[in-house]
Parts: sequence; C-alpha cells; structure tokens
Amino acid sequence: MNQPVHPAALKKPVPDALLQALASLFEDRFTTSHAMREHHGRDESSYDPMLPDAVVFAQTTEEVAEAVKLCHAYDVPVIPYGTGTSLEGHILALRGGITIDLSQMNQVLAVHPEDLTATVQAGVTRKQLNQEIRDTGLFFPIDPGADASLGGMAATRASGTNAVRYGTMRENTLALTVVTSDGRIIKTGTRAKKSSAGYDLTRVFVGSEGTLGIITEVTVKLYPQPEAVSAAICSFPTAEEAVNTVIRTIQLGVPVARVEFLDENSVRAINAHDKLSLPEKTLLLFEFHGSDAGVQEQAQTVQEIAAEFNAIGFEWATRQEDRTRLWQARHNAYFAMLQMRHGARAISTDCCVPISRLAECILDTKADCEKSGIIHSIIGHVGDGNFHVLMLVDPHDPADVAKAEAVNARMVARAISMDGTCTGEHGVGMHKMDFLIQEHGEEAIETMRVLKHAFDPKNIMNPGKIIRW
Amino acid sequence: MNQPVHPAALKKPVPDALLQALASLFEDRFTTSHAMREHHGRDESSYDPMLPDAVVFAQTTEEVAEAVKLCHAYDVPVIPYGTGTSLEGHILALRGGITIDLSQMNQVLAVHPEDLTATVQAGVTRKQLNQEIRDTGLFFPIDPGADASLGGMAATRASGTNAVRYGTMRENTLALTVVTSDGRIIKTGTRAKKSSAGYDLTRVFVGSEGTLGIITEVTVKLYPQPEAVSAAICSFPTAEEAVNTVIRTIQLGVPVARVEFLDENSVRAINAHDKLSLPEKTLLLFEFHGSDAGVQEQAQTVQEIAAEFNAIGFEWATRQEDRTRLWQARHNAYFAMLQMRHGARAISTDCCVPISRLAECILDTKADCEKSGIIHSIIGHVGDGNFHVLMLVDPHDPADVAKAEAVNARMVARAISMDGTCTGEHGVGMHKMDFLIQEHGEEAIETMRVLKHAFDPKNIMNPGKIIRW
Repeated sequence: MNQPVHPAALKKPVPDALLQALASLFEDRFTTSHAMREHHGRDESSYDPMLPDAVVFAQTTEEVAEAVKLCHAYDVPVIPYGTGTSLEGHILALRGGITIDLSQMNQVLAVHPEDLTATVQAGVTRKQLNQEIRDTGLFFPIDPGADASLGGMAATRASGTNAVRYGTMRENTLALTVVTSDGRIIKTGTRAKKSSAGYDLTRVFVGSEGTLGIITEVTVKLYPQPEAVSAAICSFPTAEEAVNTVIRTIQLGVPVARVEFLDENSVRAINAHDKLSLPEKTLLLFEFHGSDAGVQEQAQTVQEIAAEFNAIGFEWATRQEDRTRLWQARHNAYFAMLQMRHGARAISTDCCVPISRLAECILDTKADCEKSGIIHSIIGHVGDGNFHVLMLVDPHDPADVAKAEAVNARMVARAISMDGTCTGEHGVGMHKMDFLIQEHGEEAIETMRVLKHAFDPKNIMNPGKIIRW
Repeated sequence: MNQPVHPAALKKPVPDALLQALASLFEDRFTTSHAMREHHGRDESSYDPMLPDAVVFAQTTEEVAEAVKLCHAYDVPVIPYGTGTSLEGHILALRGGITIDLSQMNQVLAVHPEDLTATVQAGVTRKQLNQEIRDTGLFFPIDPGADASLGGMAATRASGTNAVRYGTMRENTLALTVVTSDGRIIKTGTRAKKSSAGYDLTRVFVGSEGTLGIITEVTVKLYPQPEAVSAAICSFPTAEEAVNTVIRTIQLGVPVARVEFLDENSVRAINAHDKLSLPEKTLLLFEFHGSDAGVQEQAQTVQEIAAEFNAIGFEWATRQEDRTRLWQARHNAYFAMLQMRHGARAISTDCCVPISRLAECILDTKADCEKSGIIHSIIGHVGDGNFHVLMLVDPHDPADVAKAEAVNARMVARAISMDGTCTGEHGVGMHKMDFLIQEHGEEAIETMRVLKHAFDPKNIMNPGKIIRW
C-alpha cells in the first residue's frame, strides 16, 4: 500500500525523563518492549507498523489525564489504542510517542434500563456491553465488523449493518468523558435525550480519531430487544434491480433493521467456502425488527417490492436457526473472499452516496475493478448508501497494490461527484487525508484545521491523522 | 425579566464607512429605520428590545459573505435573523451592530425524493417546506411551536412534538452552508446519510446560535408520510402515573410519533377556552404513525399500558377530523393559558431529564410553582423527558418576574442534578449562560470558549450569547 511521506525530521526522540515519569506512574503497566510496541504500532490497514516509543495501560480517566499532562509538558505525541481494529492507519505512531492502551478500562460504569442508556469506560467492547446488559431486555445495536471498543467506535464515528434503522455512533452517543490535549478532564453532555445547551462538544469529539482529545468514557443509547425478528433473502438478475428494491423499501418507510447487499463475486466465494448453492447473482439480505405482526407485514411489503424488480427465490424466516442460516453468507463474506487468492491481503474500501446514486456508483466501480483485473467483491449496507469493495492484492507486489489504490481513488472521486463521502464508517486515519480535502474543499478543511489548532495547539494528539500539520 | 449587565463600554459606534458600504451593496435592502431596527431587536423572550445599528436583507449566501467580510474588517457585530421567534434573547443586538435578516433567502433549492433529502436557503420556514414538498409523499417532521426558519431551527438545535420518533435538528441536518466570521463560505457535509469524513462541522454549527458563523443553507432529511396515522388521548389520576405510562411505552419500543403531557392546569385552561369538559387531571396525547395494522397495534399496546397505570377515558381516533379534535387541546394550550391572567405575559421554561427522573422533576417543580403562588401550567414532550412550565407574570412587576425567574433557576438546578440539561430545545441565548456553566462545569465551558475564540477571534458573531466574552 502506498506509504505516506514519513518525515523522520518530525519524529523527535522521547526524553528519558518522560519515560521515567510514566514508568513510575504506571509501574508494570508501562512498557518499551519491542513486541508490545510493534503490537500497538499496527492496525487492520495494509500499512507497515510504525512503533510508539512506549506503551502504557491506563485503568482510569485520571491516569489518562496524568499521562497526557506529562506528554504535553514534553511535547510528545499521544496515541489512544482500543482494540487495534481501525482500517486506515488511525493508530500508527507516525511520529513515535506514547500509546495509551485503554483496553483495561473495561468497566460498564452504569446501566439505566428505564432511560435506555449505558455509560462505559472506553475500552469496553460492543460484544462485552451486549453481554453485560442481556438481562435488561435491551441491546446496543452498532456493529462494525470487529468487536471494537466503544471508545474507538466513537472516535471513528463507526456504524455497521444496523445503522439503517438505529443510526451510527453520531446518533447514539449521548455524552463523553474526554481528556483534552493539556490533560484536563471534561464531560461533554448529560444523559438527557436531547439538549440545546451550547456547543455540541460530544459530536466535536465523535469522529475526531484521537486528534482533539482522548475519549475515556462513553454514554450510549440502548434499545429494547425487538419482540420479534425475521430475516429474508433474495437474489436479483442485476445489481440495479437489487438497489432499486432497497430505494423503494426505504422510500415507503419500511423500518428495515438491516439490508445488506452482496455482489455475485461475494456469493460465488461463499458458495465455495460454505458448500452452498446460492444463485451466483446479486443477493439482498434483510432483517426486520418489531412485533410479530409487524415483522410479517414488513417482510410481505419487501417481498412485493422485490417481485416488481424481478427478485428470485425470496425466502424468509423467523426462527433463530433459520435466520442464522440465511445470514451465514453475510457473516462469512470476508473470509470466503480471502480464500479466492492464495497469500493475498484484502484491501477494504468504504464510500457512501445518496441512495439514488448507489446503483450507478456500484456498477461503475464494478466495471472499473473488472477492467483493472483485480479480484474483488462488493458488499454494502445499502439502506444507507454505503458499500465496501474488497480487493485481493499481493502485499509484496507494489504494482498490484498501486492498481488497487488507483481503483479506490477513482471510486472515492466518483462518490464525491455524486454528493457522497470518501468514508461512510471507517474514518480518515492517515490514508484518506487527501480524499478529505477533495470532499470538503480547502475552505472547510481550513475550518477543520482551525479546530485542530485550537484544541491541540502543540499537535501532540495522534498527529498526522485527519489533518496534515 | 432580569436584564443581563449591558456594558455600554462594549457597544462601540458603528463606523459610517461600514454603513455606507452596506448601503451601496444592499441598496433598498439596507435600512437604519428605527421601526425596522426595533422589530429586529426583539424576540419572543421577555427582554426589552436591544436594537442593531442597521438591518440588511440578504438574498444569497454570497451577499451574507460580503456583509460579514465588511463587518469583520470594521470589527462590528453581526446578528443573523430568521423569523424572530427565539425564546432566550438569541437575536437581541446586545452590543449593537448589523442584523442580517435572512427571511428573503426563502428558496427551496433542491428536493431529492428518492434520497429523502431537501436543501433549502436558511430563511425557508418549516411550514413552507412542507407545503412545497406535499406532492412528493414526504414530510419534514421537526415542529417547534413557531413556524420558524430552517436556519434558525438549525442554529438553536430545535425540536418539538415529533422528536421522540424523528429526532431533532441534530439528527436531521445532513449538511450546512455556513459563512465564517471572516466571510469565507464553507460546506460542512454532503448528502450521504452517514459519513466518517473528518470533524463533524455540521454539528459544530447546529446549536451554535450564530456565534460561530452564519448558516445560509440547510440540507435536511425528509420522511415518507405515514400510510396511517392515529391519535389517542387519556387522563390519569396523577402526573406520575402518566409519566410511568410513557416510560413503559418507550421501554417496550413502541415507536410513538408523539406523546404530549398536559397537567391539570393546562386542561382547566383549555376547558375554559374551548368550552370542553375534559377531566381536569393530567392528560396524555399520543400520535402513532405506521401501517393500518401497525398504528392499531401501537394504540392497543399503549391502551393496555395506560390501563395498568389507572388511565381514565382512553379514546383513539384514526380519522383526520377526530384526530384534530383530540389534538385541539394541545394546540390551544398556550393561548388558553394566557387567558388565565389578564394582561400577563407567559414565561416559558425548558428543561430535559432522563425519563426515569421525569415524574419526580415535574412533581417537584409543580410543588415549587404552587408554593410560589405563580399561575402556571406544565406541558411536555414527555417521550424525550422534555417539559415546559408556562408561568404567567405581570411584565411590569419586577417582584413577580423575579419570583418566576427563581422558580426557573431552581427547576434548572433540579434538572441538572438529575443528569439532565438546562435546555432541551430552546437554546441558551443571553438568558441561560449561567445555567450553561452550571450544567457543563468550568472545564467543559473552557473548551467551548476555545472553540468560540478559534472560530470567531474578533468576537463579532452574535456576541454575548452562549459564552461570556
């Protein structure tokens, strides 16, 4: 993958005094071991690791504040680390510095079932939260592919398959505790469901990728577990007919909980991987949440719409085991694809367009992939207009990687030209800084820069991400 | 109402050169007439008018940018004006300066029915938008009491009765065009339904009340008109039983579109005003949106819950005229109350708490009102934990006004102590700056101040609102 310029001049040696101060503060939760630094210097992107100078494992907001204060005093970069599952180089220590690992901040601090809220430390993962609240009859719906930490999910404004109904971290974060770049602790909101009380600091930090402050606690909305859940699956002759089915469904206000798109390449890979015999055509997978009568009504409406667009083999299921079978295809899509090229690594792209442009955007991108000869598949959270191209590349072949990057760049340009965004849910990290400028224009980027400079005047908070400085 | 300190020293004379430049730019859309300045120097709050030095009527974003550039050059305050319906002194020219009236920016610029989005100039009102899109089968749900402009609604993070189902301006604003304090024009987002592309400039400006920049265009989400609508009404022996009905309804995930609370004083006023004979007890009004079967199911579930909490006279209606009759009470609540004290002015408060604390917050506030001997009523968007106390005061009696302000201050302190907010939907303006500090604490306010200083270093954007400077 194309490495960004790594100006060694910007990486300054970390003073021994800082390392000693952190060592005495964190004791056996401070390390400079190469293995641990390497573990914290990589994510799920294709970048080579970039190692921090030391790693500390914080357990409280106060410890994070102490660590940041020290780094602030010594002008040393600070990088927050949750589960390491970011996709665009978010957590790589481009300029060295101290990584603060938050995975030991894994306490669910409060659950208020009557208010449908929970407050957690930043290191709590989404699956852990759902496990801990399972007896309340509530659940937390946001589901990026990985079992990411809530802090990391807030920091990248993550979403996933349920976003079409339940929204993203933008809509589902009520309040944050944040450590600012000079080590102050602030609370950005309350548990009130709505508020007009001043600047929306919560959403200033949601999506800021650790570049404005470190999120240490997150208060999120919870939802009642639906009384009934059903799933449906059907195939279409073309991607366009599948997407048109989705557009019509959304426009009629059918409150689908999930609607996932898999192109024929995905289906082919899954058939091979799981010994299935799904029609090797575009596939849509639906999930419906509601009352018994409600989910039946939803499924019926969708079936009628799908029929208008020449759907094949509409099948629906309300029993858990049948639903699992229908969704198996989706769950295995990533691993199934990886089997399609020996020794390959998958590059996952991420763009999002207004839904009326989705079919065109997917079809043009598909044609481009085919012309480039890249082994690829497309899956999408199509109810939101969001899709990912998985491209299988040989990580040791620069030409192969460059070809994939070129497809990605053209896809992003296409999405932006359609009034869409360069990233629907993965974030900017190091990889999409140029795309960000392309999307927002210099004037808006200048306003983002003003924000960054004001909140982090020393440029120590995860430097080299989102905004070039 | 208690006037803030109005430091005359901060109000500087506006240079003639600026007035001349604006006059030549706006021609007959520039005025210094006293009547027009006075009209623009007041809102729906109880503050006495504070007049700007001049008013210009802008028709395009570029004209707003030109006006702001001039004011920036001369260090003169700029105040955006929509419909003048703010409630906390948002648009009063505390330090004089130039008011930019945006009401002539009333074009619906684009409607994309397939994507469920519309882009409008800031002066378009919510009713105008709904009128212009009525043939698309879509609607825009956010409904503050007034027929406010979309720019003003975004600037105050407005909501209303539909927020329990459809969210507030926070959730429903996709993108903005904003003129910055130095007169640059930025676009804060795209029409993509979700995005992780950098800092959330959209939500930095939503709720910023003209203090960070001037919103000139707004892209909002639209929703399909529901296939069926039904309404229900029922009374309760106590406020607590009414609120518990709402909590249970929300917790079960019943997707109510509206649920409004009226205390017995509101009902008494309405009975007198409309010659009705509703039981003079706490009243809940519901509206359900969905399919025919869906709204029936919702109403039935709510009826069962209400019965558990001793509801009286549950009545529901699907026909438009019957619904209108049921909702008449709510629509007339404000005017009916005004009739309860001759010559009085209504002070409307606004707080929002986690719903589990709502009954307690309402009951304690009610007891405080009664103890104070103030004629009052309480109405609430209770699904969100948001309620308003209407207090009838003699605006010429300082003791009366002070008594009402004291009740308000205690109510806000109560809401904050319950992890709630000092304003659910009205905003901060001049009136709630101290409450804002009380709610967020000095450290978070300092972070808000950093934002304000960075975005408006000359403090010319609606100065003296939200943050003291």
